[in-house]
Formats: sequence, structure tokens, C-alpha cells
Amino acid sequence: MYVVIPAGGSGTRLWPLSRAAHPKFLHALTGDARSLIQTTVDRLAPLAPPERTFVVTGGAHAAAIARQLPRLPDTNILVEPAPRDSAPAIGLAAAVIHRRDPEAIMGSFHADHLVRDDEAFRVAVRTAAEVARDGSLVTVGIVPTAPETGYGYIRQGEPLGVANAYRVEEFKEKPSREVAAEYLASGRYLWNAGMFVWRTAALLEELACQLPELHAGLRRIAADWDTPRQEETLAQIWPALPKVTIDHGIMEGARRVATVPGHFGWNDIGDWDTLASVLPAGDDGNVVLGDDAGERWHLAIDTRNTLIAPAGRRLVATLGLEDIVVVDTEDAVLVCPRSRAQEVRRLVDALKEQGRAAHL
Amino acid sequence: MYVVIPAGGSGTRLWPLSRAAHPKFLHALTGDARSLIQTTVDRLAPLAPPERTFVVTGGAHAAAIARQLPRLPDTNILVEPAPRDSAPAIGLAAAVIHRRDPEAIMGSFHADHLVRDDEAFRVAVRTAAEVARDGSLVTVGIVPTAPETGYGYIRQGEPLGVANAYRVEEFKEKPSREVAAEYLASGRYLWNAGMFVWRTAALLEELACQLPELHAGLRRIAADWDTPRQEETLAQIWPALPKVTIDHGIMEGARRVATVPGHFGWNDIGDWDTLASVLPAGDDGNVVLGDDAGERWHLAIDTRNTLIAPAGRRLVATLGLEDIVVVDTEDAVLVCPRSRAQEVRRLVDALKEQGRAAHL
Repeated sequence: MYVVIPAGGSGTRLWPLSRAAHPKFLHALTGDARSLIQTTVDRLAPLAPPERTFVVTGGAHAAAIARQLPRLPDTNILVEPAPRDSAPAIGLAAAVIHRRDPEAIMGSFHADHLVRDDEAFRVAVRTAAEVARDGSLVTVGIVPTAPETGYGYIRQGEPLGVANAYRVEEFKEKPSREVAAEYLASGRYLWNAGMFVWRTAALLEELACQLPELHAGLRRIAADWDTPRQEETLAQIWPALPKVTIDHGIMEGARRVATVPGHFGWNDIGDWDTLASVLPAGDDGNVVLGDDAGERWHLAIDTRNTLIAPAGRRLVATLGLEDIVVVDTEDAVLVCPRSRAQEVRRLVDALKEQGRAAHL
Repeated sequence: MYVVIPAGGSGTRLWPLSRAAHPKFLHALTGDARSLIQTTVDRLAPLAPPERTFVVTGGAHAAAIARQLPRLPDTNILVEPAPRDSAPAIGLAAAVIHRRDPEAIMGSFHADHLVRDDEAFRVAVRTAAEVARDGSLVTVGIVPTAPETGYGYIRQGEPLGVANAYRVEEFKEKPSREVAAEYLASGRYLWNAGMFVWRTAALLEELACQLPELHAGLRRIAADWDTPRQEETLAQIWPALPKVTIDHGIMEGARRVATVPGHFGWNDIGDWDTLASVLPAGDDGNVVLGDDAGERWHLAIDTRNTLIAPAGRRLVATLGLEDIVVVDTEDAVLVCPRSRAQEVRRLVDALKEQGRAAHL
């Protein structure tokens, strides 16, 4: 199969570590030395070799990605001239792959998610690829473990009779706490983790049907791909493509949608609190981000359940804290309660309003 | 009169701003551009010109003090060869001054205290100098405004009949909360702020009586002062002098001790919480240390009663904090609740134990 990794979004809730110029997926956040996009590619490597692995990203991150993923061919890093949301990004990759291999089955996976059990993940993806052979758009749904309000949900329908797959009855927006609890209790809902597997032919067919304008644009781009006109045509067509997500633009209205439930310790690492809860905690429940085994960069006295990220190579000293986030970087330090971690983007919004580009 | 300013102590509770190499009194902490020792000298200037103002300090801080106080004669900066606590430090200054002027009246005032009403302070000191003419050791006591447990207390006796002065009945150690409340309610106790006024002759007499060893040593040092043997004699005698405080070694056992109550907004700025409580607060009760009127170095959202010290010239961003201290410096950042500010020295102790001299 082919693998596509859309690498977009700056991860504003992980500010000040995640920045517009150096977003979440370029950082090592999960306790080993590899960045999130590196672990994503490594996780998918047994399913697709480098020459069948594609990254779709913005021009600002192409160089960093190329350096972090040295085995990926240059031409497999697809650079969007402007951000156009996930349907154009994934559609571009599908069109480019389809031009090279009309029989291709591709999977699309975010660059910045955490998976605990890589092998269980790959089993689910392989199952999804099996199911996708008949032309279904297949999503790998996550068996929920908590009434999360930060994720969209998938309502699971009848078994398809093929492998461990089900019809999708409906995609649901992020629910309220009560509704999320009902979803969890019912046992019929999965988290929508944005993991899709399909024949490129099947996706392009759905695009033609549901988003004909986008389909036409991608066809024109694909026609000139790998030719001297590639750059020019992309620059000409791309800016006029509609901004639309793959969920809203395609999945919600598609005719044949299936889901394969997965249970492999998935997390989107959306904010500091989530990150703290998935990383191994040390003494007193504290989580220290990065390699500070020698405690050279932090000193915690009477501190509990606190996330300390000493990324600025200065001493972070805490006393009497509980459930706090302290993130130190070279030019900014963040302090907030873990319970307010979702709101960190308010700081980023304020910095934007103030025109403080250096800190964004 | 003469003025003596003992400048010792590293102010460990104000770590990480206050360091062994750059202690509290060298920092601007009170909202203007001057350091604490500069404001102290300026406050005393109407009482004593630079040639009658002396600083006693350690060798590590002599240069910084000389640069911060350019009008002080070189020979008025007395450098202790080793820390020997306040009785030797103040005694040395008294002996040196006495050698030059046997009729001298001197006052001794810490280098790192805050006074709100400078004129009221000087009125109290002038009164104390009046009272000291008869040979009394006079302390300026602070009329307490709260049941502080961090200060020693002075039990005020009968009026002396001279100006606004009272006999001292007893010096009291730092009390418990209950005892402090009793002191406050009784109206008979003052805070001991370490402000002393006396004839040098009277102090030396008490030294001879109560600490004869120290007195003999200081006499030998003073005999060679302002001669080519000054340095050699100081180096020879000083290390053998007893380590003793002026309160314990002299004041508690002295025969004629008087006090002049003062009410001029005094504070010893012992820790971050105290500092936050005496500085003017802005929006939501937050106190921002240093000159950050343009809010270039801090961004506070939903943050209340929090002290933010952006001394590291990096952005300090807070969200959802209440009653917290965030101190950012070039090589260390401190986060702790204001209620735990007294314990900051535990961090410094831990750093000492770990031999981390760079951060001390």
C-alpha cells in the first residue's frame, strides 16, 4: 500500500514549544529522541517503503521534514502553495499516487499522533486495506476509553462480514460531556482519529461526485505532475481550490464507508495535559519532558502531577506545585494549571493580535 | 552623624534573582531603577554626606557596591576578609569611625530594606540620634501592622521623657503566630528592624564589657587602620573574631537601651510573597517586577494576585494562575505558590547539596 502523511497545523495548544515555524510534528514529545513525524513514518514503514510514503505539507516545513526523513525521496514531499485544509491536501496526494499507480490503495495518517502499540495499529490498518479493496472508504476508528469531548465520533453500524469491519452509520461532531458519556456507555461509537484507507480510484470518484470543483482542479494538477509544468500548474490551480476538510467534504456524504475498530493506545496529544497523562510519570506523578535523567534542568520540591518541560536549557525549579504545566523554551516560558491546558491557544491568539510574530 | 550600612546576606528566599554573587541589595526590586543599596544610601544622604557613609561587605561584592555608589570614598567601603556576622561587621565600622572622630554618633541600617516614607524614617532616626547623646544604645523599632512571625520583637517600656523614646524592656525572638497576635494586640511591641543609633564610644564600651575578645580584636585592627599595616592586621586578626550577631551579642544584654517607634512603611522584603504584597499591583492584583510597562516580557490571561518577574528578557506567559510566583532569570525559572515563598531557600539548599554552584 501507499502511505500519505498530511503534516499541517501548528499545534497552538502546545505553545510555546510548538510554533508556527516549528510545529508539533517536528518535536520529540513522546519520550524518545524521534520527532512525532519520525515515529509516524517508522510506525508505517512495515506497511510502505519510503518510495511509497508521501508527506503533504506547507513550504515553511518542507526543509525540516526533508532533513528529519532522509530516506524519503524528494519528490514524495508534496508542498502545498497555501494551506487549503485536508481535502485538497489528501486529494493532491491521492491524485499524484493515482497517476503513478491507478490500482493503488493508500492510507492517510496524521503526522503528530501517538500510538502505543504499533503492531496492533498495523494490524488494524492492514484489515482496513483488505476492506478497502471493494471500493469502500475505510476509517480506522478508535475504541473510546473515556467520554472525550475533544474528538469527533463515528457511529458504528452492522458488521460487514469481512474481517473486523463495520458499516459507518454516521459521523458525529465533538459532543458535549453528557452526550460523550452516552456514546461511551452505548459501546457503538468510535473516536474519529482521521485515519483513512481507500483505493485512490474510490476517493477520486467520491471527489468527482461530492466536490467536483476540487476534483477538476486536482485532475489538472495531476495531469502536469512529474512534467516541467508541475510547479506552474500547481501554483495556478491551487489557490482557487475550495477550503474543505476530508471529513466534512467527503466522509460524511460518501456512499460506501466502513470502519475498522482499533485499540492500540491512540492519542492526538492535543495539549499539555493530554501529553502529561500519556507519558510515563516519575516521582510524585511528575512528568519531565525531554532527556533530563540527570535532573540537570529541573529541580522539583513538593511538586506533584506537574508537567515540566525544560526545553530552554535553563533550570526549572518548582516548589509546592500540583497539577501545573511549566514549559520553558529559549524565548518564552508558560505556566498554567493542567486543567486550563486546552486554553493555551488563547495566549497564542493574544500574541497574534499583538503582532508578536517572534513568539508565534 | 555617621551612617553604616552592613551589606551581607545573599537573600536566598529571593532566588533565582538574588544570587550569592549578586545578592538582593544589588537589585532593583522596589519599582524604581535604583538597587536596594542605592535607595538606602539616597534615603540616608540628608543625614550623612558620602564621606560619613560607610558600607561593610564581603570581598565578592565590594566592586559592585563601589560601582553602584560612585560618590562613596573608596576607603568608606570596608571589606571583611570573611563573613563574621553583624557584631564584628558593625563593630569594625564603629571602631574605624571612632578612630577618626571619638565624638561620633553613628546609625546602622541594612542595605536591603524597603521604606515607604523616607521623611518619616529620617525624623525617627534624628530622634534616635538625639536620644543617643546620653550614651544609650538606641534602636528604631517599627510599629507593627500585622502579627508577623518572621521578625524579632522589642518590648517597649516606660517613656524616657526625651522626645518620642522609650526604654527597651526586652528583645524577643521570632514568635509563634499566637504570640505575635498577642504582641500586636497589646500595643507594647515593636518589630526589630535592625536599625541602631549610638555613640561609637557607647557601643565600644558595651563591646568591651560583653564581648571583650571581639573588642580587643577590633581595637588592634583600628589601631593600624589608615596605616600601611591596615590590610595585614585585618587579615591576621579578623578570622579569629567570634561569630556573633549585634542583637544577641550586644543589644540583649546592654545596660542602657532605648527605642524610638517608627511608622514609615518598613519592610525587609524577605521573600517573593512579601515583595509582591508591598509593590503596587496592577490589573487583577498582579505584580510585575521591573520595567515591563509595554508588556513586552509578560502576557497574563485569567491570572490573579500573581508575581511575575520577567528578568530573563524572555516572554513569561501565564494562564489561569492565582497567588503564584513566577520568576524568570537568564539561567533559571522559579514557579511556586506565594504561600510557599518562605520555603524557596529549600531549593537553594538542594542546589548547594548537589554542588550546582552556577545556580547559587
